Amino acid sequence: MADKSSLTLPETLAWSDTDGGFLRLLDQTLLPHRVEYRDCRTLEQVCQAIRELCVRGAPAIGVAAAYGMAVGLRGEAGGGRAEFAAAIGRVKDVLDSSRPTAVNLSWATRRIADFGRRRLAELTVEQTWRAMLDEAHAMAREDAEVCRRIGEHGAALVPEGGGVLTHCNAGALATVAWGTALAALYVAHERGRRFSVFADETRPLLQGARLTAFELASAGIDVTVICDSAAASVMQAGKIQMAIVGADRIAANGDAANKIGTYGVALAARRHGIPFYVAAPVSTFDLSLESGAQIPIELRAEQEVRAGLGRDLVAQGVRCLNPAFDVTPADLITAIVTENGLIRPVTTVEISRVVGSKNS
Amino acid sequence: MADKSSLTLPETLAWSDTDGGFLRLLDQTLLPHRVEYRDCRTLEQVCQAIRELCVRGAPAIGVAAAYGMAVGLRGEAGGGRAEFAAAIGRVKDVLDSSRPTAVNLSWATRRIADFGRRRLAELTVEQTWRAMLDEAHAMAREDAEVCRRIGEHGAALVPEGGGVLTHCNAGALATVAWGTALAALYVAHERGRRFSVFADETRPLLQGARLTAFELASAGIDVTVICDSAAASVMQAGKIQMAIVGADRIAANGDAANKIGTYGVALAARRHGIPFYVAAPVSTFDLSLESGAQIPIELRAEQEVRAGLGRDLVAQGVRCLNPAFDVTPADLITAIVTENGLIRPVTTVEISRVVGSKNS
Repeated sequence: MADKSSLTLPETLAWSDTDGGFLRLLDQTLLPHRVEYRDCRTLEQVCQAIRELCVRGAPAIGVAAAYGMAVGLRGEAGGGRAEFAAAIGRVKDVLDSSRPTAVNLSWATRRIADFGRRRLAELTVEQTWRAMLDEAHAMAREDAEVCRRIGEHGAALVPEGGGVLTHCNAGALATVAWGTALAALYVAHERGRRFSVFADETRPLLQGARLTAFELASAGIDVTVICDSAAASVMQAGKIQMAIVGADRIAANGDAANKIGTYGVALAARRHGIPFYVAAPVSTFDLSLESGAQIPIELRAEQEVRAGLGRDLVAQGVRCLNPAFDVTPADLITAIVTENGLIRPVTTVEISRVVGSKNS
Repeated sequence: MADKSSLTLPETLAWSDTDGGFLRLLDQTLLPHRVEYRDCRTLEQVCQAIRELCVRGAPAIGVAAAYGMAVGLRGEAGGGRAEFAAAIGRVKDVLDSSRPTAVNLSWATRRIADFGRRRLAELTVEQTWRAMLDEAHAMAREDAEVCRRIGEHGAALVPEGGGVLTHCNAGALATVAWGTALAALYVAHERGRRFSVFADETRPLLQGARLTAFELASAGIDVTVICDSAAASVMQAGKIQMAIVGADRIAANGDAANKIGTYGVALAARRHGIPFYVAAPVSTFDLSLESGAQIPIELRAEQEVRAGLGRDLVAQGVRCLNPAFDVTPADLITAIVTENGLIRPVTTVEISRVVGSKNS
């Protein structure tokens, strides 16, 4: 894992080699009130933790599932090659079904499974299991390194003495370390830059209020939570000099899908001449999509809006609509911060130059 | 009260002449789950209902306080003129202190008190009390009539078969009847126009989810609740052809203060070429203010953001900022709908023409 120097960031997940090895996950459902880790020693415990959203954020889920392969296959490492090969498929299927729509999860289990099957041809079962665990370590390291590089490219954008607005949680808790949008803030903070952050609470699931504020405060960064609807007003009051968010999927032309509400932040930033940045690894780009119009928008359960906070807020018989993401058009994005550097201006040509060759 | 024809609207408040007379208030704190009325037979019961937000919305609070004068003075009507005159001042002070920042409240009690003191010179105490009650009835009637006229001017703007977005509650529940922004929808519905409404839930206090959705559904109007942050996305999806909101204060140049989040709705509407209307009585204009920059923005308690929904959402030690209103610049407002007709375009000259002579 990358060096975190003086910063205190919550550790999203870690592998412990004691007791034959197990996966420790920060239980994010208890945040911000309790910092507790769950030790996952069986496949079922890993699946349960993923299902219950102890771990969330595409990169973090992927790496947790990669380690889940090691957890699930540990008990199978005493048998023959054929039994182990069959177990690889079985464990992968169980993990994949724990959150069927999380594409990063099945991508990560496939990488570990394919790697294991290849090594099984030349190694013993025990050696193969060990090599698969090392591959999971490599994935964790890669994720932290990519995030750190995003942070280094983004840090220079953070205005000294300024205010920074962010939406949802594109932070350390969504990745193995550093995060994407928040990585820029962590590196800037490390380098001594002083700034204040305004975190949109991010209805309906409140990742901003619960997670972003928690991890920024843990790192000693000044942070204030606002309602999503207050972002434009806080900009109008002159408190914001930069907005930075993550992304879930970016089309070839730079249109970026991210948590619902991101598009509104971009519109307000444009009105006030505030730079609006998207931070994301190149793996987020889907160059097969010409524009954001082709990005499917997940509609989540009405219940998250209706009663996402413990009690029923809406009259019976009234529908709720709960789009989970929106698409910010490329023309509103000042630059996209990737591990390969900045994409600026956000055009198909610039994206292809920075991302194209790395994304095939 | 104005004729509500086929519409079923919740009755915000009413005077009952039985048992010597008392004020009935719809207990809005129980909405949308229970429709219960509170009978206020003593001054203390009226004050408690106002304090506990059984009644909210500037016009509704004002009229409730006017009736509160009648409730509080009923027991004083058997004494002499001097005692009654002293009681007028005493009852007014008690009512005014129930919500000290609600300017409509002290404006309404002053109107009733001044009226009572004038009539006391020529009428008996009993006749004066009766005249003051009639004056409260007149205020209720005026409020309903002003709202109905706003609705009639606004109804023609509602697009047949279209989608209408609104924010917060500028409805029947905030006034004696009809509301302001929602009055336009009620009259359009009465006239047979078909349309769908999207109601922003309106964090932090959720007046959209709790009140607007309730009263529109009660009236048989199709309504869907969305998170505030989804408004821009729903517009992007082509579901909205009109946005209409209320206002708390409008400057001479048309800049309009309204519930936090209104400005963001206006920005998104502009991006998508959707007309954005403000509906408000001429009494909302403050022509002594040149522009919205002079409108003071109330900062409300952090607690409404931090734990407004029953549990603590934010890490300890993290601040919340809770501006209650924002200012939408006049250039984003397509028209202002008043009881005197439309102000369109929204310019100082047009405002002065429609409002000026009525507001002195």
